[in-house]
Amino acid sequence: MSDTGDTLRDGDLLAAADLGSNSFHLVVARYDKGTPRIIDRVRESVRLAAGVRNDGTLDPDYLQRALDCLARFGQRIAGISGAHVRAIATNAVRQLADPEGFLEQAEQALGQPVEVVSGREEGRLIFLGVSHGLPRSKQRRLVIDVGGGSTEFIVGRGLEPLQTESIQVGCVASTLRFFPDGALTAERWQRAQDEIGLQLQQFAADYRELGWSETIGSSGTAKAIGLMVQTLKLSDDGVRAEHLAALREHLLRAGHIDAIDLPALSPERAPIIAGGVAVLEAAFRALGIRRMQVCEIAMREGVLWDLVGRSSDRDPRIASIRSLAARYAVDTAQAARVEDTALLLFEQAGAGWSFHPGEREWLSWAARVHEIGLSIAHSQHHVHAGYILRHADLAGFSRQEQELLAAIVQGHRRKPDPALFDALPVRYRSLARRVAALLRLAVLLRRARREQKLPTLHLRTDSERIALRLPRAWLQRHPLTATDLEREAPYMADLGIRLELHADRG
Amino acid sequence: MSDTGDTLRDGDLLAAADLGSNSFHLVVARYDKGTPRIIDRVRESVRLAAGVRNDGTLDPDYLQRALDCLARFGQRIAGISGAHVRAIATNAVRQLADPEGFLEQAEQALGQPVEVVSGREEGRLIFLGVSHGLPRSKQRRLVIDVGGGSTEFIVGRGLEPLQTESIQVGCVASTLRFFPDGALTAERWQRAQDEIGLQLQQFAADYRELGWSETIGSSGTAKAIGLMVQTLKLSDDGVRAEHLAALREHLLRAGHIDAIDLPALSPERAPIIAGGVAVLEAAFRALGIRRMQVCEIAMREGVLWDLVGRSSDRDPRIASIRSLAARYAVDTAQAARVEDTALLLFEQAGAGWSFHPGEREWLSWAARVHEIGLSIAHSQHHVHAGYILRHADLAGFSRQEQELLAAIVQGHRRKPDPALFDALPVRYRSLARRVAALLRLAVLLRRARREQKLPTLHLRTDSERIALRLPRAWLQRHPLTATDLEREAPYMADLGIRLELHADRG
Repeated sequence: MSDTGDTLRDGDLLAAADLGSNSFHLVVARYDKGTPRIIDRVRESVRLAAGVRNDGTLDPDYLQRALDCLARFGQRIAGISGAHVRAIATNAVRQLADPEGFLEQAEQALGQPVEVVSGREEGRLIFLGVSHGLPRSKQRRLVIDVGGGSTEFIVGRGLEPLQTESIQVGCVASTLRFFPDGALTAERWQRAQDEIGLQLQQFAADYRELGWSETIGSSGTAKAIGLMVQTLKLSDDGVRAEHLAALREHLLRAGHIDAIDLPALSPERAPIIAGGVAVLEAAFRALGIRRMQVCEIAMREGVLWDLVGRSSDRDPRIASIRSLAARYAVDTAQAARVEDTALLLFEQAGAGWSFHPGEREWLSWAARVHEIGLSIAHSQHHVHAGYILRHADLAGFSRQEQELLAAIVQGHRRKPDPALFDALPVRYRSLARRVAALLRLAVLLRRARREQKLPTLHLRTDSERIALRLPRAWLQRHPLTATDLEREAPYMADLGIRLELHADRG
Repeated sequence: MSDTGDTLRDGDLLAAADLGSNSFHLVVARYDKGTPRIIDRVRESVRLAAGVRNDGTLDPDYLQRALDCLARFGQRIAGISGAHVRAIATNAVRQLADPEGFLEQAEQALGQPVEVVSGREEGRLIFLGVSHGLPRSKQRRLVIDVGGGSTEFIVGRGLEPLQTESIQVGCVASTLRFFPDGALTAERWQRAQDEIGLQLQQFAADYRELGWSETIGSSGTAKAIGLMVQTLKLSDDGVRAEHLAALREHLLRAGHIDAIDLPALSPERAPIIAGGVAVLEAAFRALGIRRMQVCEIAMREGVLWDLVGRSSDRDPRIASIRSLAARYAVDTAQAARVEDTALLLFEQAGAGWSFHPGEREWLSWAARVHEIGLSIAHSQHHVHAGYILRHADLAGFSRQEQELLAAIVQGHRRKPDPALFDALPVRYRSLARRVAALLRLAVLLRRARREQKLPTLHLRTDSERIALRLPRAWLQRHPLTATDLEREAPYMADLGIRLELHADRG
């Protein structure tokens, strides 16, 4: 059990909202002996991706539909502890010109933060959900998740994804792109196969070399195709390439999206099924897939399992931090000294700043990776670290969480850039500034980079102020640290914090 | 012998110009059986650092003095092959608000490109010069080079630097900063010791842990101090801490820079000696140095050795590229396939584009590291690679050469950013665009990432055009590559190159 916020007890409720490009989903679960047991599901066909205009703005009708849906979700989860709810937005929101503007309204409607995750993180969550839902296996599995705006391909074993790729083609997006006026022709189909194939080619050889023994299709598109294949009595045991060909011929014979007449296809799914079949057909070809089993599990189940992991010692973010520190050859002894000192300051700061559970972790993590930028160059290494943290694929972190970590780490030395903090979601701004200030002090006190007894420190905080008290005699014996501390005040001011130094007798 | 431009023959002349913060130096040497033998030296006290104003502009008098000096240097080296001349600017130019503006005028006056190097590269060149000039030793050496604007500290063994640090304090800069009106007081001296000590503290512990058995002071300041110590009959065998203390007391007794009266001190050196003594005193204390031997060798000798290395198989840039590829875990098989294909295209392009000797190397190097950005994330990995190449400490490369490599690599996929190319020095722009275009084609042809026989390619170039001819039958069997190639034309247009595709019969 870690100290990542509060832990789960049997009977606690958990909720995951998935703001997908096609549908929005909400699942509510009860925690029971280590497992989230789903007790409620809501699905609404918002089709957000179809409302994104060429200039990246969102059609007001679609926006309203999304906000209405989130308000309903919000009512359902009111009363569940915020630490046990995660709402995640994926490709459609990633594509918006102003994702922050949308997120602000979405969060207000839902009454909860909404996080954006990368395609790769989306893949990790899908794999986590699917592998918890299927029988344990020692073989590698390929999971294909055709979403509304993107498709994820994950090869993994057990609960662990080994390779994750995301292509910018989903059932909504590809239907709009390849069949814009609804006409379904063989020529357009071929063009779709070529273009999707081109994207798959980027990783197909790597995947085939790695290999896997079963292919799983997750999410709505796979489920709908599986159901049609079954209803057409083509197969009772998964979807094969020839079944996709048969569906393709059905669609081309219909000639137009409005004329599609396939059994077991819901009216909501019909307008976007062509793109979904096209994506899967291209994937079967590029990856040499013979048969795909269909699985109803999707990202939202993975989010529930991730919430369970975060409240235990399986928080995937800890592993990501560890792997970053290793990849960029961090001096772990120095990082540990800085972390210890930073947490000592955090304890004292807590009296005035009353941190929320889980906020301590941000300081720990920032301390562990604050020197990764040295792998690029010593000069401006805090900026390089910020760059890496902002752009790396970090399993378990949402985009906003990466921005938070990047701002703290980039602010750990030299003049902090207030714009980095102002760009964070409102809920993180004050946390980021305070944690960055504590990290700065810890780095400064540990600048000698060796085991060294620190003096007795007294740190007091109130809203915008840190008062740090050190023994005068120690300061006199450590004139460099004294000079360093005196220079901190203007830097702290850039963080919106007034730093007061007091030299104590003794 | 590599193909890095032309090679040296006995009797060839070499020249190195060093645009330092205090003096400008020119050394001319004759290549003789692997060794550059110096045949001429010119030194002018330009004191560029003193002409840099607070807003980063250069005082016009100082600018004119610098340009006049460079014109004289230019006359001396007229007639020496451009490949055998290197002119290098250091800290004073790094500090300018508009280094490019200065460099353009400097290059015109000198008639040769002038490159800016980082403090770390400066350190490497110094160590290269010093270690060639001293007896071979298996022990580690610390070389301290107090320059006008910065001081370099290099620990190394043999010809190889192991650790290099540069602090932004040199004899000109520190004299101006700590003794601005010329008054020399004990209090100011102490403040200088504290502030310089603070900068040294960043790496002092690491250095002391590494250890070294002899300390060498290179460049003018060390030489002047050594000479004073000798003339004052303080020592005949190097400079010790107590000698620096004695010089300090001399200076404080004088009370003002104008009143300094030390034996063997040139009138040009007198106004900046206080800062130099202060830097060395702080360094002795922070690094626990007992005795420093003085050596007259400086960066310019290192530049000559570097020129010799570049024309042989000891080009340090090759090792830097290799180490980058290793550090960022490049898929070397894929990099080698891309490099082979790129060089094949380069051969064919040479007919129309008539590359200079040595330009081929840029394509090789770019191919070897074009995927380093994958270590950060797959998405936008060309941009991440550009970031790393722009900011990394790459031994052997000047700043401008790093920008060149970064532009080529960042332009290797997706939409190239013309601003990256426009920002390069004029002499590199066309080269960068052409090499980036060839790398793009090679990456595209090698996208399958496996051993695969390529079709017969015919590539013809003229000034702004590439005509690529491929067998029609092959293109039909490889529709994805065909689509990829068709999409290239608008990207190439961003590089200022018209791409024409021809499908041949056969």
